Amino acid sequence: MSEPQAGFLNRTLRGMRRALRRAGGARGPLKDGVQADLPEDDADRLRQQIDACLRGQGGEVSARTRAAELGETYLVLDATGRRRFLDILAREYDTAPDALDEAIAAYREAVDERARATARRRLREVLVAPRVRLLGQFNGLRQGVKFLVDLRAELLSQVGDDPGLRALETDLRALLTSWFDVGFLTLERITWRTPAALLEKLIEYEAVHAFRSWDDLKHRLEGDRRCYAFFHPNMPEEPLIFVQVALVTGMADNVQALLDERAPLGDSEDADSAIFYSISNCQAGLAGVSFGSFLIKRVADDLARQLPNLKRFATLSPVPGFRDWLDERIDAADADLVAESEARSLEAAFETSDLRRALASAAWWEDEARAEALREPLMRACARYLVEARHGARARDRVAHFHLTNGARIERLNWLADTSPKGIEQSASLMVNYLYRLNEVERNHEAYRGDGRVTAAAGVRKLLK
Amino acid sequence: MSEPQAGFLNRTLRGMRRALRRAGGARGPLKDGVQADLPEDDADRLRQQIDACLRGQGGEVSARTRAAELGETYLVLDATGRRRFLDILAREYDTAPDALDEAIAAYREAVDERARATARRRLREVLVAPRVRLLGQFNGLRQGVKFLVDLRAELLSQVGDDPGLRALETDLRALLTSWFDVGFLTLERITWRTPAALLEKLIEYEAVHAFRSWDDLKHRLEGDRRCYAFFHPNMPEEPLIFVQVALVTGMADNVQALLDERAPLGDSEDADSAIFYSISNCQAGLAGVSFGSFLIKRVADDLARQLPNLKRFATLSPVPGFRDWLDERIDAADADLVAESEARSLEAAFETSDLRRALASAAWWEDEARAEALREPLMRACARYLVEARHGARARDRVAHFHLTNGARIERLNWLADTSPKGIEQSASLMVNYLYRLNEVERNHEAYRGDGRVTAAAGVRKLLK
Amino acid sequence: MSEPQAGFLNRTLRGMRRALRRAGGARGPLKDGVQADLPEDDADRLRQQIDACLRGQGGEVSARTRAAELGETYLVLDATGRRRFLDILAREYDTAPDALDEAIAAYREAVDERARATARRRLREVLVAPRVRLLGQFNGLRQGVKFLVDLRAELLSQVGDDPGLRALETDLRALLTSWFDVGFLTLERITWRTPAALLEKLIEYEAVHAFRSWDDLKHRLEGDRRCYAFFHPNMPEEPLIFVQVALVTGMADNVQALLDERAPLGDSEDADSAIFYSISNCQAGLAGVSFGSFLIKRVADDLARQLPNLKRFATLSPVPGFRDWLDERIDAADADLVAESEARSLEAAFETSDLRRALASAAWWEDEARAEALREPLMRACARYLVEARHGARARDRVAHFHLTNGARIERLNWLADTSPKGIEQSASLMVNYLYRLNEVERNHEAYRGDGRVTAAAGVRKLLK
Amino acid sequence: MSEPQAGFLNRTLRGMRRALRRAGGARGPLKDGVQADLPEDDADRLRQQIDACLRGQGGEVSARTRAAELGETYLVLDATGRRRFLDILAREYDTAPDALDEAIAAYREAVDERARATARRRLREVLVAPRVRLLGQFNGLRQGVKFLVDLRAELLSQVGDDPGLRALETDLRALLTSWFDVGFLTLERITWRTPAALLEKLIEYEAVHAFRSWDDLKHRLEGDRRCYAFFHPNMPEEPLIFVQVALVTGMADNVQALLDERAPLGDSEDADSAIFYSISNCQAGLAGVSFGSFLIKRVADDLARQLPNLKRFATLSPVPGFRDWLDERIDAADADLVAESEARSLEAAFETSDLRRALASAAWWEDEARAEALREPLMRACARYLVEARHGARARDRVAHFHLTNGARIERLNWLADTSPKGIEQSASLMVNYLYRLNEVERNHEAYRGDGRVTAAAGVRKLLK
Repeated sequence: MSEPQAGFLNRTLRGMRRALRRAGGARGPLKDGVQADLPEDDADRLRQQIDACLRGQGGEVSARTRAAELGETYLVLDATGRRRFLDILAREYDTAPDALDEAIAAYREAVDERARATARRRLREVLVAPRVRLLGQFNGLRQGVKFLVDLRAELLSQVGDDPGLRALETDLRALLTSWFDVGFLTLERITWRTPAALLEKLIEYEAVHAFRSWDDLKHRLEGDRRCYAFFHPNMPEEPLIFVQVALVTGMADNVQALLDERAPLGDSEDADSAIFYSISNCQAGLAGVSFGSFLIKRVADDLARQLPNLKRFATLSPVPGFRDWLDERIDAADADLVAESEARSLEAAFETSDLRRALASAAWWEDEARAEALREPLMRACARYLVEARHGARARDRVAHFHLTNGARIERLNWLADTSPKGIEQSASLMVNYLYRLNEVERNHEAYRGDGRVTAAAGVRKLLK
Repeated sequence: MSEPQAGFLNRTLRGMRRALRRAGGARGPLKDGVQADLPEDDADRLRQQIDACLRGQGGEVSARTRAAELGETYLVLDATGRRRFLDILAREYDTAPDALDEAIAAYREAVDERARATARRRLREVLVAPRVRLLGQFNGLRQGVKFLVDLRAELLSQVGDDPGLRALETDLRALLTSWFDVGFLTLERITWRTPAALLEKLIEYEAVHAFRSWDDLKHRLEGDRRCYAFFHPNMPEEPLIFVQVALVTGMADNVQALLDERAPLGDSEDADSAIFYSISNCQAGLAGVSFGSFLIKRVADDLARQLPNLKRFATLSPVPGFRDWLDERIDAADADLVAESEARSLEAAFETSDLRRALASAAWWEDEARAEALREPLMRACARYLVEARHGARARDRVAHFHLTNGARIERLNWLADTSPKGIEQSASLMVNYLYRLNEVERNHEAYRGDGRVTAAAGVRKLLK
Repeated sequence: MSEPQAGFLNRTLRGMRRALRRAGGARGPLKDGVQADLPEDDADRLRQQIDACLRGQGGEVSARTRAAELGETYLVLDATGRRRFLDILAREYDTAPDALDEAIAAYREAVDERARATARRRLREVLVAPRVRLLGQFNGLRQGVKFLVDLRAELLSQVGDDPGLRALETDLRALLTSWFDVGFLTLERITWRTPAALLEKLIEYEAVHAFRSWDDLKHRLEGDRRCYAFFHPNMPEEPLIFVQVALVTGMADNVQALLDERAPLGDSEDADSAIFYSISNCQAGLAGVSFGSFLIKRVADDLARQLPNLKRFATLSPVPGFRDWLDERIDAADADLVAESEARSLEAAFETSDLRRALASAAWWEDEARAEALREPLMRACARYLVEARHGARARDRVAHFHLTNGARIERLNWLADTSPKGIEQSASLMVNYLYRLNEVERNHEAYRGDGRVTAAAGVRKLLK
Repeated sequence: MSEPQAGFLNRTLRGMRRALRRAGGARGPLKDGVQADLPEDDADRLRQQIDACLRGQGGEVSARTRAAELGETYLVLDATGRRRFLDILAREYDTAPDALDEAIAAYREAVDERARATARRRLREVLVAPRVRLLGQFNGLRQGVKFLVDLRAELLSQVGDDPGLRALETDLRALLTSWFDVGFLTLERITWRTPAALLEKLIEYEAVHAFRSWDDLKHRLEGDRRCYAFFHPNMPEEPLIFVQVALVTGMADNVQALLDERAPLGDSEDADSAIFYSISNCQAGLAGVSFGSFLIKRVADDLARQLPNLKRFATLSPVPGFRDWLDERIDAADADLVAESEARSLEAAFETSDLRRALASAAWWEDEARAEALREPLMRACARYLVEARHGARARDRVAHFHLTNGARIERLNWLADTSPKGIEQSASLMVNYLYRLNEVERNHEAYRGDGRVTAAAGVRKLLK
């Protein structure tokens, strides 16, 4: 160690990164590389590198350094080359069948508890595929954790029905699930004092109500607004998931009002309700690694501690699948959609009682009579959709499924609550308040998970009759 | 979530901790609890709690909360109660045999690659013992990671040859190995500006050359001394391992000189050598989770970057097993121990040529003639011990094994290098310099790991002739 | 102190601020208040408050609390009320004439050195006007330092030729000069990781080349750009002055090229020149408190330490007064402005040889022939303006004066260097490089300060012949 | 600025410091230097340097650099050299008499308000002695503020009745008073997590109850103990003043009990009283710059906010001057010291009724009968001392004077409250509780400051009868 070895590697990497940058190329780790493909010669060299890593050649420090070089190799490959890289990992570095057969045989022959324990341990060892050990070593890259998260995002986009890639992706999810255990995450409040580099990422990742400008962003971080995100210590500048909250009096029923930058500022300390109006996952590579429910819980705790006047924790949520379901029901000529008297009102307002045609008429939500004619049938339909529509045992609506799993209940449907183009298109202006009540959360969760029973407030249930 | 649930739990925990504290009791998490034993009724309640956690009853937030309560239950148990708790985990929450048999059968029946992939995945799932999932959830405790580290320390002290506890301990090691991957650790320099609460722990954990006082500690952190430690983000006040370095000119050959608080301060920027003179592991519960070689590497890199005049990275290490080995050789009447001329010198100095008796004479190291008479035979014996003595394929000396595995070479043996009581008792005053040279590290490692060949400098090899 | 007194005050202030905020009113401390005027009754109460503060009534903690209340009183006054407040301070709380006369008499009668020393001390005490002691106590306000800075800004805008307000403003400058000594300021690099709340202030304060957007801002903080600011510990979110630097190869000669967001990123480590292209003072209330030369010096030091390839520290500066001076010369029919051959070129390009009319023609800078015709006469005129035009003993151009005082030299004039509307309007597209050379700085400064001699490179001096 | 000038200076200074360090010498800034004296030649060079600084030669950056060099010059001087340096500053760089005479003349001749304002301004300028401007520039030293604080400490120790040095010291106090305005100080809690380098300074500076060990220190920072200090931003590792607080139930009456490391930990949240039992000033050079009363106030506010159960803020204070005063009264044969019945008790216990002889007997405080015999006369005498003994208009006891000025009242005298050697020697075991009550503080302060009236609880006043 007379000369610093990792220093050498770092210089190499820096050199490669600079080269990439000069080539007008990738800053982010997993943008497409610049080298064209991975020729077979290189593939062989790759296998040698992988083998050397797995053998721990040169000691564990050297092996880790080699793994980092492998990661860098991946980064400079183009799409074809990366696919070949992943295929090699998937097919050639899975659990060895012979070793597994042997371990199974040993287990079946074990005669006493001690022998069985030994055999189980051996089985576990054998089932850790070499590629998993290799993936774990990529942690030695400077941005190793982010690298693996992005690698899984890439895998997910390519996996199709390839069983090898699927197995690799599953391995990777298991690794990331362990690393991203909620116990390792830190909850941080995001404010206007947060570094701009991070705020810029909120703008990029916001998936529910897009930020219109930096002013809009500022408005959603200050005064009676709050924003919180989860972070992992190895990705300090990358939010994993973030939630936006409005502190208001009463349960919010309109998202445009909530996002209006010119509305007068409320006083957080007087607010009785915390309205969670946007939750966005940021990392495609962490799909299926869950921390959303923890986020809501911990934000609610934090707010409750700081603002003792808060009495109500609820959401103002979109109903993303409503119109699709409604169109299916219309196609199926569902007789319950429009009652007779309602049909007459529609006829009067739209010159048609056909729901789909009425909904297709321009800007109906700005015409009081038309909106009124649609209100009852759509509110009723939406209640049916949320409470009764199923995708297997789950609620069909993915947002509903998320909150019901967390133990919330459907508290209220709000008419003309989101009249943005997206709001009209996905849910005909409807939004939902899901209510989180401490003493109900466990019961609601169990009811939903066990029997698929959806808990809804009386006002919502009444719509179903 | 109208009331903060986790807040409730936290209050409960705080209450319990306060209760413990008042009882004059435990601050640290795994000191013995105060409750006497775990009665069978409680054991049943415990099983119910575990089952509820594993079932995810009430949702994942609630399950996590319950796991934390379980952890707290463990903390208030006494030794007997804890043993029962661990036995329950070990015996009743291992992989279910039926499920494993089914998964094996499915694997054996799989007809194509896709089916085999599915069966392998199922095998992996089944082999994750329920207790492992439960242990993972203890991460939800405020000091959950430290809790598990201490839990493993406790397990290690009790495991004996109990196969159940051994399997549980193995599970826990796998979990901790994943969580304590070196990529998650941060290297931090420890200085006199470091919080006293942390410095106090160095005093507690130092295993090689005990700190005599806070002044001694200060002296080892300032001027031409350095101290570095690895930390895990979830245990920010607990060093995992730390190393002490002296920046000197030439290769240090005496540890008392190195630790002398009254010696004049050298100038770090003039130093050509970094001498690693003490490495201490701090967490018994992380035995077998390796990061020592990374620590040396990263400290060397950091020093090299800051102090470009440094040319040499070496240790001044004890030889903890030398005297034991030597006594065995004496018992075996090893003829190579003392040459004829040496026997005469010993006779002249000690009135005996018997090595053991000579070594038993009081303060021989302060008598020039006596020390001189012992020098040659002991230097030669020590070289044999280090280079040739084996424990299986490994070097018998555990410190030698560590550095040789890291790719260092045995550079020099130093006579009268540690005349503290411990130094005399363990190694008859001898210490070793292990030298780390960047361009040799991989080769040395491979030679040692493959053929068990020990790399030693010419000066050391000469002693063997 | 059974109840927290300052806590009480803080509650009061918080209440007042909240009231102001609700009234749709001021966030910043010195926006106009909402109360109409300061009635005479209140003025009397004000005097009582001031007297109580100055007497230290109730102890120094209470006096400080009272001063904070006075400050808050000021904040809620409207413009008229504030003017009255300031007038009271200016006229009624100056040094008492009687006390001063007495102190002067005592000094004149002092017979020996000891008596004279005592008398001088007394004179100094008497000359500290009571209002100065009061102003100092406003430091107890939460944002007390910023309050006083803004108070001086307000004073400066109102002082006119009122001797009382002028004296008050002078007192305040002395106080701020002591508090804002450069030794108390911290230099901080501003990056894209800086809190957005602070970046927003750069946008507000930038006085030379306005930021077009947050993207423009980001571009000026990253890659081969640097930005540094001075801060005071009591105003951590308020930059005092900031400078923007481009790291380039060769001496930059065009500001639009420098600000082009689409230009390829250079590599800072290859750059040989640091170009200071924008320096903005942020606090009107600190006019006359100088730290600009320290800023340049310390930024240059910091850059030199980090980027050893930097060989040149220069500016790319506007010439804000050039056109005004040129118009005066044109009015004065200065025969040196346009040589005969130049007149012919102008005639050919513009159909007039009148400089003013030529300069008034639309977008002349986009027409190669026209620009070429103007080049020589304007370069020559600008060199005359910079080197010879005087405002008293100072260079007439304020930017030139700043850099010449700092010891820089005029290195080069750049034609078509700023073709923004402002650049055309103020300086007919010309910009200057001022060069800072370590071994010349003191000599240049002395030459300029002593004899008013302007140091200019040969290329510039040649223009003067 | 092609080469970094300040960098050059820094290198020089670092070189000088290293030289000093190698010479076995000073770390702290104002330990005695190593050079012997300041020869006359050097004195002339010194004057030239000072003149260059004051003239701003080479620009303000260069002047500041020169001032730093001057400071370094001072540091390497020995005691004689430093004295000469200070004498030069004191005598040769005071306000110039001619300039002052002229300014006075101008003031006397001023005919209107405008002219008088101008003349007053001129007087103020002239009265800022050149040495003050120079001292201010020492702020450019890396540790410039600490340098000046230590310089004043040195001046205070040498000033004697030298009017020149006294004036210089007064100038320096004025400068430091402005710089150390309480508005610039930060209050920080000191805990066991505080850097050891800072804790070490508490050990050094503690003036009331010396720390016995690092364990004692730890005990006074944790659990139901608190410690707070004021810091200046330019001296972040140097506390200015610190206070130690015990959170207890009831008003503490014995300091040995309070400091007992083995006593069971109380629970801070149950405590009803915050007892300030030690306040230590740390910087001799800030004598006369007051912030003690602010410290008490702000610590009380902070504690009240965190621990709402606290009802009482009081001290447990020494009575440092009691025995001296008592001895004077004994010498004066004060008949009120010992009543007749008390004399009998003394006689019975000590075989003498002479107070002085009784107090001189060994360990009387450990003998119940003897202690009881002394109790009444001493309690009475101490009450007289505290309430009635005067030093001019001030309470004679300096600790009493401090708390009375802050508006506290004398709440209780405690017998056998400090039986350490110092406690016995200074105050015959007595200690006082001063009580701070929010609604009394201003009134008590005014009474004490105005009429010198001491506020005392009924129990104390009763002792006076």
